[in-house]
Amino acid sequence: MLGSAIQDHYPDEYAHCYGCGRRNPLGHHLRSYLVGSESIATFVADAKYSGGVPGHAYGGLVASLLDCHGTASAAAFQWQAESAGANVLGSLARFVTGSLKVEFLRPTPLEQELTLRAQLRRIEGRKVWVDLSLSHAGLVCATAEMLAIRLRDRG
Amino acid sequence: MLGSAIQDHYPDEYAHCYGCGRRNPLGHHLRSYLVGSESIATFVADAKYSGGVPGHAYGGLVASLLDCHGTASAAAFQWQAESAGANVLGSLARFVTGSLKVEFLRPTPLEQELTLRAQLRRIEGRKVWVDLSLSHAGLVCATAEMLAIRLRDRG
Repeated sequence: MLGSAIQDHYPDEYAHCYGCGRRNPLGHHLRSYLVGSESIATFVADAKYSGGVPGHAYGGLVASLLDCHGTASAAAFQWQAESAGANVLGSLARFVTGSLKVEFLRPTPLEQELTLRAQLRRIEGRKVWVDLSLSHAGLVCATAEMLAIRLRDRG
Repeated sequence: MLGSAIQDHYPDEYAHCYGCGRRNPLGHHLRSYLVGSESIATFVADAKYSGGVPGHAYGGLVASLLDCHGTASAAAFQWQAESAGANVLGSLARFVTGSLKVEFLRPTPLEQELTLRAQLRRIEGRKVWVDLSLSHAGLVCATAEMLAIRLRDRG
């Protein structure tokens, strides 16, 4: 595992995300890590993020975690593709979500460790497709397919 | 427009959702209304729900609002289909999300009124398909397709 989280490598101006921004003091602070060719994050959701029935996360939280983990993973996967051989992440381009399709397979528990995983499907220019999952205790609660798009450099 | 919000008609035991539950004191309290054959909600997002760049919502909030509005709309659409002629919502079955596909078309502003709309695509037994949009000032920021599934009655 590389030592720092992927989100630590976003430029300061792009680090305000409620889901994963280090500069958002009120947010979730999701942290994603490259592990070989995969990206992994863990998260424990507070009880307030209940769905209709207490004890399980509301759908929006599931989508939020997958979304933030996905865009971070896209940035890291593109960096990997362009930096063969390097073993420390540099400053990363920021990706935004083009589309996100979530399949909800079973309830996602609150106050227990969830694991998010991402694998690269393919890269085409500024577009990166990522396959995602959210699991608890080895059971997959949700999967997702994401198209992430790299923001254009500003000059 | 029917006088009460769709979410007011969820049974108490299913009214704890962070996104739209009247019994969750810490949540968003999204309220959706049937207007003819359509369902509409409005929402103003706090500045803390920023995406990477301040001023625009993070993707998870966009997905959350669409998700909660979608399951509420599914419940109301099914009630409409089964209650032709009635003009006041009764107690509603609770729907959960089977799948949600969000297309992010443009940034969604914070601290300004957003409008969510839902239309029924079709109903098959416990499954309801809903088309959704989130717009600001007449411009569509995101669209979504949802499959919502009615929870089984407990007896």
